[in-house]
Amino acid sequence: MNAEIIAVGSELLLGQITNTNARYISSQLAELGVNVYYHTVVGDNSERLRQAIELAESRADLIVFSGGLGPTKDDLTKETIARHIGTELVMDETALTSIEAFFQRINRPMTENNKKQALVLDGCQVLANHHGMAPGMFYSNGKHVYILLPGPPKEMEPMFQLEAKPVLARWLNQGEVIISHVLRFYGIGEAELETQIMDLLEAQSNPTIAPLASDGEVTLRITAKTSSEEEAWGLIQQTEKELLSRVGNYLYGYNDDSLASSTSSLLIDKGLTIAAAESLTAGLFQSELAAIPGVSQTLVGGVVTYTAESKINQLGVSKDIIDQYGVVSAECATAMASRVKAMFKTDIGVALTGAAGPEPHDNQPAGTVWIAIIMPNDDVVTHELHLSDMRNTNRLRAVKRTFHYLIQLLSNN
Amino acid sequence: MNAEIIAVGSELLLGQITNTNARYISSQLAELGVNVYYHTVVGDNSERLRQAIELAESRADLIVFSGGLGPTKDDLTKETIARHIGTELVMDETALTSIEAFFQRINRPMTENNKKQALVLDGCQVLANHHGMAPGMFYSNGKHVYILLPGPPKEMEPMFQLEAKPVLARWLNQGEVIISHVLRFYGIGEAELETQIMDLLEAQSNPTIAPLASDGEVTLRITAKTSSEEEAWGLIQQTEKELLSRVGNYLYGYNDDSLASSTSSLLIDKGLTIAAAESLTAGLFQSELAAIPGVSQTLVGGVVTYTAESKINQLGVSKDIIDQYGVVSAECATAMASRVKAMFKTDIGVALTGAAGPEPHDNQPAGTVWIAIIMPNDDVVTHELHLSDMRNTNRLRAVKRTFHYLIQLLSNN
Repeated sequence: MNAEIIAVGSELLLGQITNTNARYISSQLAELGVNVYYHTVVGDNSERLRQAIELAESRADLIVFSGGLGPTKDDLTKETIARHIGTELVMDETALTSIEAFFQRINRPMTENNKKQALVLDGCQVLANHHGMAPGMFYSNGKHVYILLPGPPKEMEPMFQLEAKPVLARWLNQGEVIISHVLRFYGIGEAELETQIMDLLEAQSNPTIAPLASDGEVTLRITAKTSSEEEAWGLIQQTEKELLSRVGNYLYGYNDDSLASSTSSLLIDKGLTIAAAESLTAGLFQSELAAIPGVSQTLVGGVVTYTAESKINQLGVSKDIIDQYGVVSAECATAMASRVKAMFKTDIGVALTGAAGPEPHDNQPAGTVWIAIIMPNDDVVTHELHLSDMRNTNRLRAVKRTFHYLIQLLSNN
Repeated sequence: MNAEIIAVGSELLLGQITNTNARYISSQLAELGVNVYYHTVVGDNSERLRQAIELAESRADLIVFSGGLGPTKDDLTKETIARHIGTELVMDETALTSIEAFFQRINRPMTENNKKQALVLDGCQVLANHHGMAPGMFYSNGKHVYILLPGPPKEMEPMFQLEAKPVLARWLNQGEVIISHVLRFYGIGEAELETQIMDLLEAQSNPTIAPLASDGEVTLRITAKTSSEEEAWGLIQQTEKELLSRVGNYLYGYNDDSLASSTSSLLIDKGLTIAAAESLTAGLFQSELAAIPGVSQTLVGGVVTYTAESKINQLGVSKDIIDQYGVVSAECATAMASRVKAMFKTDIGVALTGAAGPEPHDNQPAGTVWIAIIMPNDDVVTHELHLSDMRNTNRLRAVKRTFHYLIQLLSNN
C-alpha cells in the first residue's frame, strides 16, 4: 500500500510554521509498513487542493490530510474533498455536543461558524478529537482511503495514534502483529551509541532497530512483525537484552517515559520527598516534575532565587559563601540544596545555579552550571557542566542532567 | 512569480527528519514577494523525482530543490535535472579546489566519489557552499528558473541567504518593496477575532491580512507590496489602525514578542520588580519569564508551594484561610501573592493556585485556577479560570493568562 500526505495551510507555504505533521504521520505509517512516496503542501485554496487530491489519487492508495478542518472560511479541506469525491457533509451530533460543551466550559459564547467543525463526510468513520474541537475522519470509497486530521500537532498526533492508526491497521487486515517498544537513553551521543551497536544495526531484519536523537536524548525503537503478540514480545525481549548488554548504563526509561516521569516514579516508589532551589533554571526543574500527574506525593515545593540577595535573604545561604566562591560554584549550589532541604523538610534537596547566557555571570562564562543534590543520608553530590552560550538550551539541559543524576542515584540505592 | 519547493530525500518520507528547509525557503521567498503554491517531498528515486519536476514545471516559474547533491549514489538531484532539461554536468574547478582543500585540512584522503560533488549544470551560476562541500546552482533556461541547494539546513540556510537570494532578487529585478508586520493577540479565539474583522478580511488585497492561531494565541500578519518602504508602512499603519479599533483590547505585542517578553519589557520599563508564588504551575511562570535575557532586572525570585503544608510553613499563608476557603480560592491566591511580595520585597506579587488535573483537587474540578496579582499600590486583582482537564495545557494556559493580566494592568498605568 502506498500513501501520500497532503498538508493544507497557507501558513506552511508562507514559511510561518514547519510541516512537522508530515514527519509524524510518515513515521507512523512506516510502522504499519505503508510506503510514503510523496509529501505535498498546498495552501488554503480549493482549486489547488482539488488538483493535489486528483494527483495523489493517481499515485497513492491512501491519502492522509492534515489541516483545514477548523471553523473559519479558510478551512476548506473537507468541503473540497466532499465535492471532489461526490459525497455530502453531514452534522455529527457527538462532535457538535462536544464543541458546545467546550464553549460552556470556557464560558464563552459559541459563534455560529464553530458548528461547521462538526460537519463530517457522509459515511465516514469519525475520529474523536480529545485535544481540540474538529473531529477527524476515515473514509473509504473502495478505490482510495482518505484520512482527514486536524492541523495542530497536539490534536493531530494523539488522534492519529489513538484513533486513526488502529482503524487503519484493521483496514489493512494484516493478520500480522506489529509491536514497537522504545528504549530511552540519556548521557550518550547518537554517534557513540550507534558505534557500540553497529553490528546489531547492520544485521537487523526482524525486529528492526531504529535510533533517533533529539534534545540530548537518544531512543532505540525495536519493532517486531510476527503472527502473534507473544512471539513479537519474545523477539523484542531478546533484542532488548542484547542492546542493554552494550549500552544499558545509559537507559533511563521506556516508551512514553521522560526523564521527569522516571525521576518522579523512582521518588514515589521509594517514598521520598524532594524540594529544589533554582537560580538559572528559575523554576523549570520543579515545573517539569509537576508536569507529571501524581507528583504531589513527592514534590513539596521549593524556591526560585534569581538574585544573589534572594539566595541570602530568602534561602539563607551565607553571605560569606557567596563572597568567597561566587554564586556559580559548588559551594553555593551545596548551600542552596542544603537550605531548601531544611526549609521544606524533605528527604532530598536539589539546587541549580549557573550562567544561563548569552552573557557571562558572576565572572563565569555562559554555560557554566553547578548542580548539587543532597540525599536522605546527607550525602552531597555536585556536578559542574560546561554548556553553550544559548540561554534556553542551557536551562533545559541543566534540568535534564539533574533528572539524569537523580535517576542514577536513586537506581543505585 | 510562482514557486514550488521540492525537497529530495527518502529520510523525509520515512519520517526520520522534518522538512525544515521548506519553511525556511518559503519565508525567504515570501520576503521577495514570490508566491509559493506547493511544497513537494520526493524520495531518492530518479523516476519519481523526474515526475515531480515535470509537474512543478507545469505549475510554477521557479523550482527550488533541496537535498541530493552529496557524494553517494543516492544523491541524484542534479543528474536527474540535467537529463530532464537536456543539459550536461561539467566540473566546476573552484568547487573542486575547495573540496580538495577541505580533505587536506582534515588530513584525510579524498575518495573518488567526492569529486562528483563539484559537477554542476552547464551554464549555471554556481552558489558557493561555505559550510560544506556540495555547491549550489542557479540555472535559468528562459522558461523556468531552477535553484539547487544542499539538504543539511546549516549548509542550505546560509547559502540561500547569502548566495541564492541576492541572485534571485536581481533576477526578479523588482523595484517592489514587500513589508510584513505581525500583530499578536491573546484572550480572543481565532473564530471570534475573524468574525469581528470579517469585512476587512473579505475586502483585503493590499495589504493582505493573514490570521494564524496557535496555543491560545492569535496573530494577524499584515503584508504590503508597494514601490517604496514609506508607502508600504503607510498602508500597514492604516490597516493596523482599523484592526485595532475592532480588536485592540486583545493586542499584546508585535512580531517576535511573546507574552513573557512583553511582560518583562513593561516591568523593566517601569522599573518594577516581581516575585511569584506558584502551586499548580510549580515554577512555570517564573521559568517562562527567565527565558527572556535581561530579566534579572525585574525577576527577584519566588517560591513553589506545591502542598498545603508548604503554603503555610514556607510561605506563611494562614492555616485559617486554607481551612476556611481551601487552597483553590481567591483568598488563598491573594494570601500567597501578598506573602511572596513581602518575603521577596518586590513591587509586584503574583500567585497561581488551582487544580491542574486530570483529577479534581481540594474539592475543585480539574481546570479551576485562581490567579492573584498585587500591584505596587497594594491593589489586589484576582481572576478565576475554568480550563479543561488536561494538566499541562492548563498549567501553560494559566501562566499565559497571568502574563496577559499583567500586561493589561501595566499598560493601563
